[in-house]
Amino acid sequence: MNETHAASQLALAPLRIDELLERLSSSDPVPGGGSAAALAGAVGASLVSMVAALTVGRDAYADVEAEAREIGEAASGLRNQLVALADEDSIAYQAYMDARRLPRQTETERAARARAIEGAAALAADVPLRTARVAREVLELARRIAPMGNRNAVSDAGVAALLTSAAIRGAVLNVRINLPQLPEGAPLQRQVSEELPQLEADAAALEAAALADVSARLG
Amino acid sequence: MNETHAASQLALAPLRIDELLERLSSSDPVPGGGSAAALAGAVGASLVSMVAALTVGRDAYADVEAEAREIGEAASGLRNQLVALADEDSIAYQAYMDARRLPRQTETERAARARAIEGAAALAADVPLRTARVAREVLELARRIAPMGNRNAVSDAGVAALLTSAAIRGAVLNVRINLPQLPEGAPLQRQVSEELPQLEADAAALEAAALADVSARLG
Repeated sequence: MNETHAASQLALAPLRIDELLERLSSSDPVPGGGSAAALAGAVGASLVSMVAALTVGRDAYADVEAEAREIGEAASGLRNQLVALADEDSIAYQAYMDARRLPRQTETERAARARAIEGAAALAADVPLRTARVAREVLELARRIAPMGNRNAVSDAGVAALLTSAAIRGAVLNVRINLPQLPEGAPLQRQVSEELPQLEADAAALEAAALADVSARLG
Repeated sequence: MNETHAASQLALAPLRIDELLERLSSSDPVPGGGSAAALAGAVGASLVSMVAALTVGRDAYADVEAEAREIGEAASGLRNQLVALADEDSIAYQAYMDARRLPRQTETERAARARAIEGAAALAADVPLRTARVAREVLELARRIAPMGNRNAVSDAGVAALLTSAAIRGAVLNVRINLPQLPEGAPLQRQVSEELPQLEADAAALEAAALADVSARLG
């Protein structure tokens, strides 16, 4: 925890899966749950793309081909956003920890450190907020493809819904843990007081709708 | 979908994260939701280990140090099991697809193909069943560490609970999609008729308990 990471060292996409798991497991809090939530959303988006790819070009699904193609392309774009947000989360949290380690001997240093912590906390709360919003879009795509995509892959649509719902709710926890570090009455605090409960409610409702369709098609 | 993968090509742990996402996204159904569920459980296990590592050796948490250490070590072992199950799931589903491509010109070929499909489907159902059981153990660890681990990492305990709950329920979907391929009255069918609803109920109850502790400590 006592070394500063360069941003390039925090890029997660080039890591091997076993390396990612090792880094998550360590006592270094970066990468942590915020990045894990974003990556879970990216895995969900990938599964949506797979279900779409298994639907497009099949005679049995010709009537939903255009919508499946649109869903697959949208999921691909959202996946890239979530991979970038996983990195941003690690960078933001690292900056927050760096700010906390600033010197606090003099009054001037203490004031500068307090401002640095507030700024870093605002970013550390804003990144998972954006993660939750993007994951919500992916969950909406999973809900759309669950009732009409290739039936052989309906369990994959269900896993996509479960992972993106977990990503939303996990990202919300990461917003909430950073809020107390913001100054009283900060704009972000007021904004999220309505948005976070809405994101959690959407996660529950969209997940339930998707899983009801999956269960019906599993028979 | 028309090429056979060697088992070594299906190992997921050495893949880069961006490669995994690309493979999940493709129209090749391997790897798919079963492997994704197992990996989500492995990420959850890694986060449990991280929370434990941030708890052990801290004066403020001296009274829970022994339990935190035990939880961290247990999570590490379960993580390795889930990584292995992610690979097993890809191998089992590949074997199932290979069985379906066996020749069926003669009566003898058709009988051999039917037996091969039944055997492969039994494995393709058994692997996610074991995934769900192992992910359930990780969720139990997340529930234990949520109320007593390092408070700065309580959101990470929450993400661990969310991801392992999603892993259990996603794995259950992967058991269910394979059950219709088993012969009527197969032992596995009888066994899971009680176990799957229990696993889903445990996932919901343990996740809710963990998140209640997380929310209380987030303030």
